[in-house]
Amino acid sequence: MNFPSVISRIEAPDNSSAERAWQRHDNLTKPPRSLGKLEEIAVRLCAIQRTLTPQVTPSRILIFAGDHGVAHEGVSAYPPQVTSQMIANFRRGGAAINTLARAANAQLHVTDIGVCGEEVPVEANIEHSNHDFAFHRQRVREGTRSMTQGAAMTRDETIAALEIGIAQAENAAHDGVQIVAIGEMGIGNTTSASALTCALTGSSPQEVTGRGTGIDDEKWRHKTQIIERALSMNNIMPLGDTPTQDRVLDVLGAVGGLEIAALCGVCLGAASQRLAVVVDGFIATTAAALAVRLCPVVNEYLFVAHRSTEIGQVALLEIVGQAPLLDLQMRLGEGSGAALCLPILQGAVAVFNEMATFQSAGIDGASA
Amino acid sequence: MNFPSVISRIEAPDNSSAERAWQRHDNLTKPPRSLGKLEEIAVRLCAIQRTLTPQVTPSRILIFAGDHGVAHEGVSAYPPQVTSQMIANFRRGGAAINTLARAANAQLHVTDIGVCGEEVPVEANIEHSNHDFAFHRQRVREGTRSMTQGAAMTRDETIAALEIGIAQAENAAHDGVQIVAIGEMGIGNTTSASALTCALTGSSPQEVTGRGTGIDDEKWRHKTQIIERALSMNNIMPLGDTPTQDRVLDVLGAVGGLEIAALCGVCLGAASQRLAVVVDGFIATTAAALAVRLCPVVNEYLFVAHRSTEIGQVALLEIVGQAPLLDLQMRLGEGSGAALCLPILQGAVAVFNEMATFQSAGIDGASA
Repeated sequence: MNFPSVISRIEAPDNSSAERAWQRHDNLTKPPRSLGKLEEIAVRLCAIQRTLTPQVTPSRILIFAGDHGVAHEGVSAYPPQVTSQMIANFRRGGAAINTLARAANAQLHVTDIGVCGEEVPVEANIEHSNHDFAFHRQRVREGTRSMTQGAAMTRDETIAALEIGIAQAENAAHDGVQIVAIGEMGIGNTTSASALTCALTGSSPQEVTGRGTGIDDEKWRHKTQIIERALSMNNIMPLGDTPTQDRVLDVLGAVGGLEIAALCGVCLGAASQRLAVVVDGFIATTAAALAVRLCPVVNEYLFVAHRSTEIGQVALLEIVGQAPLLDLQMRLGEGSGAALCLPILQGAVAVFNEMATFQSAGIDGASA
Repeated sequence: MNFPSVISRIEAPDNSSAERAWQRHDNLTKPPRSLGKLEEIAVRLCAIQRTLTPQVTPSRILIFAGDHGVAHEGVSAYPPQVTSQMIANFRRGGAAINTLARAANAQLHVTDIGVCGEEVPVEANIEHSNHDFAFHRQRVREGTRSMTQGAAMTRDETIAALEIGIAQAENAAHDGVQIVAIGEMGIGNTTSASALTCALTGSSPQEVTGRGTGIDDEKWRHKTQIIERALSMNNIMPLGDTPTQDRVLDVLGAVGGLEIAALCGVCLGAASQRLAVVVDGFIATTAAALAVRLCPVVNEYLFVAHRSTEIGQVALLEIVGQAPLLDLQMRLGEGSGAALCLPILQGAVAVFNEMATFQSAGIDGASA
């Protein structure tokens, strides 16, 4: 479905399912509300899925990888070709997210939405031995333009990437997937995410720029200067609380990235399909915040998996309107935090669907 | 193995395994240390298990249930017979921990170490349909004496409960279990845990007493007064940092509980078998802190699963020397937080054991 149609289809989750879910929770054999956020998760899933038997399996992790023109300006600890090399690593099953997806029994789909150059060759049979894995080559272009020279993407490229994300969310729903998790790979993409965060929150580059893959003080100062230059070159002003879709798309095109646009599209597409989205760290949260600005009710479909050590994420949490579920001091990306969060959601659903009630178990209740 | 022999067998984890584990971690295809606590978990497990291929499956959750004489003095929102009723609920598979253990693919062993009265009957076949579940009836006595009247347990009863816990840790190791998680059930046991926490930390009852299963202000004031009376009746003085074993056992016997003693025994037995222990909330943390006071090096075998909303746990974390991994605002007990933590440990181990190195994957490293 195209971008404007999807936005028009998104509805708020169902409050009456949430109310009935709380009633059930309060009858289960535990002190009411004693499972804290686990109870809230189950109730939110009931509202999102419009059911009293919420499901989170099968789950699918969607990773998008793209290159960034700005990566050639010395903003990362790693050279740009690492994006392409990591695609091969995903396909061979050797990256962190492969191991975490397997541990969480989640499907893993990796999409090359705009990596530069020739694909790194991967042995013919290795992907097939990689359980529940799929690789999609859907390059919108080979890397973005440098945002210090002008817009990173044209409007058409931005919409194309958004719509690839939308389509993948729709495919997931079609395949019977019950929840999607989002992650990314792209050398230079914390620079893009920090620039977007400046536009989304009105913060300065110094306030929302972190160490990315691990840069030193000097490179960090350089990174913030690059972001300042990109914001200035593209005349980026803070979006405020109720920007027009046109302004959001302008900002996304000017200083965003193909993988960030696709992740934004996944959030929109998932919400339109009544699928919850587990959002990974800083970059995925940037994409989610853009989706909320494009369609505010999307935030009710989001779970923020974890608090990243990338400082920029904090500024975005107010827009996303969800507190992170985990805080494990992680900053890898790839959907790694989202994968770790899936078993928490599975636990929340198991409790809700499988526990006995006080009445069915013959257990005395609390005194008044 | 008896209590004194076990303590003499406990050794510190292996630092050289930890050093080699960090070397491996820093060669895996991710920015060094970008997986934060996930990396620390894997390294600690390497040191505990003296290996570079740490394992956390199969895992076994050990729950101990006991009654408390003090429960008849109106300290809980629930009547004392709920302990016995919950045993039946565990055996039927309807409690929160049953659902969370299944979700985490963990074994679940429930031990009645001192519940009062007749067992609530359970349908003959239902336990067998309950996957990877075992029930053990090992009552040391039917409930403790009220700690407001004198010692809750004699020294012999205290040691008997400790040694049941030790034996269960040894059995787990014998059965090939790679990690144990501990939890409890016992109406009145937050009162006991708060009294123990006063002795362990020197805090006042007001500082370390929470709402338990959910009591109101008036009952909370009554609960703190009961604890004050028990501490005074039993002449409990703060244990300080280096108490004798004899003093620790005195305090445990005076204001502890059978399930708390057993959990303390599990910590000791597990450490002696080089098994890591995942500690649940407030009550399990109290038991773990007692184990650390009996044998300080035990703390290196512990993972604190989550930050409980029971305020007393905070005071104990310094003794246990480990920060909680999750914070989901939970206060149920039963090992529920520990069960949720198991997939995090599984993820940590999957990353460590299964990821590619930069060299094997042909990926460029960071610039100097």
